[in-house]
Amino acid sequence: MKSFASDNYAGVLPEVMDALHAANAAHARSYGADHITAEALATFREVFGSDVSVYFVFNGTGANVLSISSATQSYNAVLCSETSHIYCDESSAPETFTGCRFFALPADSNGKLAVAAIKERLIRQGDVHYAQTAMISITQSTEYGTVYTPGEIKEIADLAHANGLYLHVDGSRFFNAAASLGCSLADISSTAGVDILSLGGTKAGMMYGEAVVVFNKALDKHIAFKHKQVMQLASKTRFIATQFQAMLKGELWRKTATHANAMAQELLKALSGHPEVVITRPVQANAIFAEIPRHWYEPLQEHNPFYIWKDSTHEVRLMCSWDTQPEDIIRFTSAIDALSKIAV
Amino acid sequence: MKSFASDNYAGVLPEVMDALHAANAAHARSYGADHITAEALATFREVFGSDVSVYFVFNGTGANVLSISSATQSYNAVLCSETSHIYCDESSAPETFTGCRFFALPADSNGKLAVAAIKERLIRQGDVHYAQTAMISITQSTEYGTVYTPGEIKEIADLAHANGLYLHVDGSRFFNAAASLGCSLADISSTAGVDILSLGGTKAGMMYGEAVVVFNKALDKHIAFKHKQVMQLASKTRFIATQFQAMLKGELWRKTATHANAMAQELLKALSGHPEVVITRPVQANAIFAEIPRHWYEPLQEHNPFYIWKDSTHEVRLMCSWDTQPEDIIRFTSAIDALSKIAV
Amino acid sequence: MKSFASDNYAGVLPEVMDALHAANAAHARSYGADHITAEALATFREVFGSDVSVYFVFNGTGANVLSISSATQSYNAVLCSETSHIYCDESSAPETFTGCRFFALPADSNGKLAVAAIKERLIRQGDVHYAQTAMISITQSTEYGTVYTPGEIKEIADLAHANGLYLHVDGSRFFNAAASLGCSLADISSTAGVDILSLGGTKAGMMYGEAVVVFNKALDKHIAFKHKQVMQLASKTRFIATQFQAMLKGELWRKTATHANAMAQELLKALSGHPEVVITRPVQANAIFAEIPRHWYEPLQEHNPFYIWKDSTHEVRLMCSWDTQPEDIIRFTSAIDALSKIAV
Amino acid sequence: MKSFASDNYAGVLPEVMDALHAANAAHARSYGADHITAEALATFREVFGSDVSVYFVFNGTGANVLSISSATQSYNAVLCSETSHIYCDESSAPETFTGCRFFALPADSNGKLAVAAIKERLIRQGDVHYAQTAMISITQSTEYGTVYTPGEIKEIADLAHANGLYLHVDGSRFFNAAASLGCSLADISSTAGVDILSLGGTKAGMMYGEAVVVFNKALDKHIAFKHKQVMQLASKTRFIATQFQAMLKGELWRKTATHANAMAQELLKALSGHPEVVITRPVQANAIFAEIPRHWYEPLQEHNPFYIWKDSTHEVRLMCSWDTQPEDIIRFTSAIDALSKIAV
Repeated sequence: MKSFASDNYAGVLPEVMDALHAANAAHARSYGADHITAEALATFREVFGSDVSVYFVFNGTGANVLSISSATQSYNAVLCSETSHIYCDESSAPETFTGCRFFALPADSNGKLAVAAIKERLIRQGDVHYAQTAMISITQSTEYGTVYTPGEIKEIADLAHANGLYLHVDGSRFFNAAASLGCSLADISSTAGVDILSLGGTKAGMMYGEAVVVFNKALDKHIAFKHKQVMQLASKTRFIATQFQAMLKGELWRKTATHANAMAQELLKALSGHPEVVITRPVQANAIFAEIPRHWYEPLQEHNPFYIWKDSTHEVRLMCSWDTQPEDIIRFTSAIDALSKIAV
Repeated sequence: MKSFASDNYAGVLPEVMDALHAANAAHARSYGADHITAEALATFREVFGSDVSVYFVFNGTGANVLSISSATQSYNAVLCSETSHIYCDESSAPETFTGCRFFALPADSNGKLAVAAIKERLIRQGDVHYAQTAMISITQSTEYGTVYTPGEIKEIADLAHANGLYLHVDGSRFFNAAASLGCSLADISSTAGVDILSLGGTKAGMMYGEAVVVFNKALDKHIAFKHKQVMQLASKTRFIATQFQAMLKGELWRKTATHANAMAQELLKALSGHPEVVITRPVQANAIFAEIPRHWYEPLQEHNPFYIWKDSTHEVRLMCSWDTQPEDIIRFTSAIDALSKIAV
Repeated sequence: MKSFASDNYAGVLPEVMDALHAANAAHARSYGADHITAEALATFREVFGSDVSVYFVFNGTGANVLSISSATQSYNAVLCSETSHIYCDESSAPETFTGCRFFALPADSNGKLAVAAIKERLIRQGDVHYAQTAMISITQSTEYGTVYTPGEIKEIADLAHANGLYLHVDGSRFFNAAASLGCSLADISSTAGVDILSLGGTKAGMMYGEAVVVFNKALDKHIAFKHKQVMQLASKTRFIATQFQAMLKGELWRKTATHANAMAQELLKALSGHPEVVITRPVQANAIFAEIPRHWYEPLQEHNPFYIWKDSTHEVRLMCSWDTQPEDIIRFTSAIDALSKIAV
Repeated sequence: MKSFASDNYAGVLPEVMDALHAANAAHARSYGADHITAEALATFREVFGSDVSVYFVFNGTGANVLSISSATQSYNAVLCSETSHIYCDESSAPETFTGCRFFALPADSNGKLAVAAIKERLIRQGDVHYAQTAMISITQSTEYGTVYTPGEIKEIADLAHANGLYLHVDGSRFFNAAASLGCSLADISSTAGVDILSLGGTKAGMMYGEAVVVFNKALDKHIAFKHKQVMQLASKTRFIATQFQAMLKGELWRKTATHANAMAQELLKALSGHPEVVITRPVQANAIFAEIPRHWYEPLQEHNPFYIWKDSTHEVRLMCSWDTQPEDIIRFTSAIDALSKIAV
C-alpha cells in the first residue's frame, strides 16, 4: 500500500538509514555531548546563522511544547490559528505542560493567521485578570498545505516584536515550505524575524526526531533545563543528530521536499480534470485539499487511504511524501476515472 | 461614591455582618469541622436537596477551578462561552491548575451558549490527539446580565449527559438569576440537571466566600482533596459558612437580589428615554449594557464609575447592587440629562 | 470549649472586628484599587521598608504557593525542612501549581534547618537532569514552636544568596516569633536578608487573610499576575487590608502575640511540675510540645482538645492563642493533676 | 573509545539495526495502527501475559511519567527511593506533569526500598492536608546495580495492594535484572504483582524507545490519552515496535544482558585483586560500584570514561554494556595495574 493519508506513513530515506548506520560505529557520549551532535550543530549554524542554539527532540508535539515553554510563564497566553496542530491535534499537552491559555484565532481560508486577526486579540496588556499574551504561533507550511511568504512572516514577526511578543513557527513541514518558495531555510526563519522554530524531521523522511532552533537569545535562558523536563532529551542523541546532518548536508531536504511538492502538483493536475472534484485550497506544498463525492470514500480508500478533513462538506486531504511515485498518482487517478465513469 | 462599576464594589449586608459577629463567640474547630459549618450544610441540603455536598471557598475563580477539577483529567477539554468569566477574566488559572484545554464557543447576542454551538464541538470522541471534552460550563446570570430559564438549562444538561459530559454553572450572580426568574435555587440547578455549581456569595453582599455545590455524586470522589489542593480550604471556615447561612435562611438572598434587579429596571427605564442611549442586551438581572456617546465617559464616571465593556462600540456595563438606591439612579440620570442638553 | 488544638480555633480580635465594620462604610474599588488597601500598603512600608510590595491573599497555603511561584521556573527545586508545613500539610499544592520538586531536608530537633544540612543539597548546579534549586524555605516560628534568631536567618540568607538562591519565610506565626525575640518585624525579614515572606494573619487573630511581602525586587516581576492566577486575589480586598492595618497600627500584633507566648510559658510552668510530662522542644513562641501518658489523651481532650503530634512517642502539641486565658491553663492543669493522682 | 560511563554510550545491536531496515519496506499507518506494532504487541502478550496493554514511548523519563500519571490524581503522592532515577535524574518532570508530591524514602545500602521504610510513610490516609499516597515506585535493577528478587517484589506489591496503592517498576535495566536472576520477565513483573512497568530498551541496545507495560486493568482507563498528552506517542511507532520485537523474539535480550552482566563479573574479578579498590555494592547486574584513589580519576578516564558517583568518598560507577569486550576489561585493568605500581 502507498497511502496519501499522511507523510508520516512513509518510511525513512535511504540516505538517512545510511547515516544511522554510520553513526552506530562506536561508543558516544550520551545526552548530546558526542561529536556527531556537535557536527550537526555546526551544520545548523551554517544553515541558520552562527548564533542559533539547537535542541533535538523526539516528536513534533515535544518540539512545540518545548518552544512555547521557553517563552512563557504559566500566566501567559499564546495566539494560534483555530486550525493549528497545537490547538487541534496535540491533546491538551500545550496547556498541561506550560499552564498557558491558547487563544485560537480565525484562520483565513488558506489556514493562515492574518495580521488583522492577531491585532484584534492584542488586548488587555497588563490586566492581571486576563491571560497575558506572550507568543504568536504559526504553522509553515500550514495545516492546509499553503505557505507563508518571507514577507508575510516578517510582517507577523514585526507585529509580535512591536508588542513584546515572540514568534514561534511550527515547522513540521518546514522543508516543504522552503522548497515551495525556492528560498533558504533562513529566509523564512532567522532572516524573517522568527524567534524559535520547531523544525520537522519525521514527516520529511527521518525515522524520528525534530529540532527546536532558537534564534532569539532571550529564549535560550531556560530551554536546556526544560528540554530535559519535557521528556524530550534523548540519551542517544547522536541518532537524531545524524539524521538531521544527512538532511541538511547538500540540501537533501530540498531534493526530497521538492519531489513531494511536485507529486502534489501532478496529483492536482490529474484531479483538476474531474468535474466531481473541487480543489478547495491553493496547492503550495505537498498537500491537496479537495471536495469529492462521498460515495467515493470507500472504493478510493481501499487502495489509497487518505484523511477525511471535514465530513460535512466531504473535503478530503491528500498528502504526498518523499516516496510518492508517479505510478501512485496514476493508480489513484485511474481509480477516480473508474468511479467517475460509474457515476456517469 | 456609589458606583455602577461592579457589584463587588458594594460592601457587606448588615445581616451578614451580624452573622459574622455571632459566629465569633468562641473557639471552633478549624477546616470546616465546626458546628456552624454543619448547620450551614444542613441549610444547603434543605435548599438544594438532601444529597448535595458543599465546599466553601474564598472566591469565584477558586470555585470555578475546583468545580472543573472535580470532573476532569488533564487531557480533557471544557466547553465554555467566548464571553465567559473563566475564559476572559480568570487569567490562565483554569488551565494551570486543571491542565485542560478550554474551547471557547461563540455566545449568542445575549451571552448564552446555544445548544447548536455546543453540538458543533462534540467531535472526535476517543481520538487521543484531541483534548477530550468532559464538561460544559455556563454562567447564570450570564456575563451580559441575561438569565437561562430552567428549560434552557435542562436542554443543555440533557445534551451534556447524553454525551457523557458534566454541566457546570458559574453562578457568581446565581441569586440574581433565581430572583429574576422567581424560582427556587434548586429549579435552576439540581432540578434542571446541573452537576456542579459555583454559588456566588461575594457579589451578593457577603464579605468573601463562595460555595461549590455538588449535585452529581460522581464528582464527589476527589473534590475534598482538591479543595485543599487548590488553596481554597479556609482554616476558619465558620466565617464563610455563617455568611451563607445568613443569605439562605429566610431567603435573604431573594430580597436583596430582587432589589438589585429592580434597581436595574429603574435605571433601564430612566435610560430608555434618552435617544443617545442604546440598550444592547435584555435586562434580566442586575446588569445593563448600553451604548452611550463616548464623550460621556469622563463626565459620567467622575461621580458614577462604570465599566467600559467594548470601547470600539462604546458599549458600557452598569451594575446594580444590593445597596443601590433610587437616589443613585436619579443622580446618574440627572448627570445624563445634563450631558444630553449640552449635546443639544 | 477553649482549645489548645490550634491557634486557628480562636476567633477574631475585637479590634479586627471593629476594623471590618469601619471598612464597610461605602463602595470601594475592587481587587485592591481602593484607598483602604492603599493605606494598609503604606503601613507595611513603614514597618518593613519603603521598598516592599505586598499582595494580600486568603490563606497560608495560598501565601506560600504564591511566594514560591514568584521565584521559580517549573524545572526548579525548593529546599525545605521535612517538618515544614509546605511539605507536610499543604497537600501537593506546591508541586501542582509551581511544577517544582521539593527536597525535604532533615530538621534539627528544634525543627530548624541547619546551614550544614542545606549545604549538603547544594549540588549539581547546571545539571539538566537534576531539578535546579532556586529557593530555600524556612518557617518562623517553626512547626515546633521554636524561633530563628535574626543571626540564624541572616546566615541562611547569606548562604542562599551566595548560591544564587532566594530565601522564603513561611511566617504563619511570624508575629509570635517577633514578640518572642522582642525585635521588629523587619529585624527578622528585610534586615536579615529574607527575599519574600508569607505573613500570617489568620492564626494571629484575623478572620482570614495573609500577606505576601516582597523584599527582593527581582521577585516582583511576575507576582502580580500570579496573584490572580493562584486564585488568591480577593475582589473585596479592603476587608483583608483593613484587618492587617488593625494588626500593624500601634503594634496590636505584639500585644496579642506576646500574650499568647506568655500563656505558653504559663502552661509550660504548670506542666513542668508533673513527672509524667516530658517537654520535648524549647518553648519559644506559643506552642508546647510534650510527651504525656497515652491514657491521658481521652480524659484531657474531652474538655481541652489538642493535637497528637507523634503517636508513637505520645508527643502532643498544645497551642496558645490570643484569647487563651489563665483560667484555661488552670482548668487544663487541674485536669492533669486529677489524672496524675489517679496514676499514683 | 569504549566507555564504562553508561550503557547508553553503547550503540545499537546489529539485530536491532536489521529489524529497523526490515521495518522500512513500505508505508505503514502512523501512531501505532500498523501491523508491525500489532505483531510486537502480540509478542509482549506472549511474554507478559495475554492481558497486558503496551504503550511505546521514546525514553525512560517519558515511560516513568506516563506510568505514574496513569495511576495518580494531582493531589497524590508517590513513594520512591532517595536514590531513584525519578527522584534524582529526571529534573522535576514527574512533578510538573503529574502534579504529585514525591516522598523519597531512605534506600538500604543496596539501593533497595525496604518494606519497613515504606510502612513508615503509610500515614494520614484520608487527611486532605497531606498528599495522598497512591503509588510505590521501585527500580529494577536498582541504581546501585542490585536486583530485587521475585519474592522481594511480591512483598512490596502485597503491601501496596493491601493499602490501596499501585506498584510501579522503573525497569530501564529490567533485562539485566531478569538475566541476573535467570528468570522470565513475567516472574518479576506480572507474576510478582507489579501493576505497571517501564521496560527499558535504549540501554539494552536499542536506538531509542521504551515500553510501558500495563498489568493492572485499572491503570488502562486513561493511559491511551495520556500517552499522547505526555508527548510520547511516536508517529512512526513501527520503528520502536520493531526494535522491541527484535529484543523479545528468541530472547535476544537475555543473550545480550547476560553478556553485559558477565562482563561486570569479569571486571569485578579483575578489580578485586587491587588493595586500593573497595567494591561498595553487590555486583548483581551490569554495574560495579567501587571506591578508588582519587588521583586515579584523570589517568583512568583518559581512555575509559566512567561516572563519579560520590566524590566525597571517591566512589565510582562502572557500567558494562552489550558491547563490552574482554579486551576492554583487560585494557582498563592494565591501566589500573600501571597506576597501582606508580602508587608503590
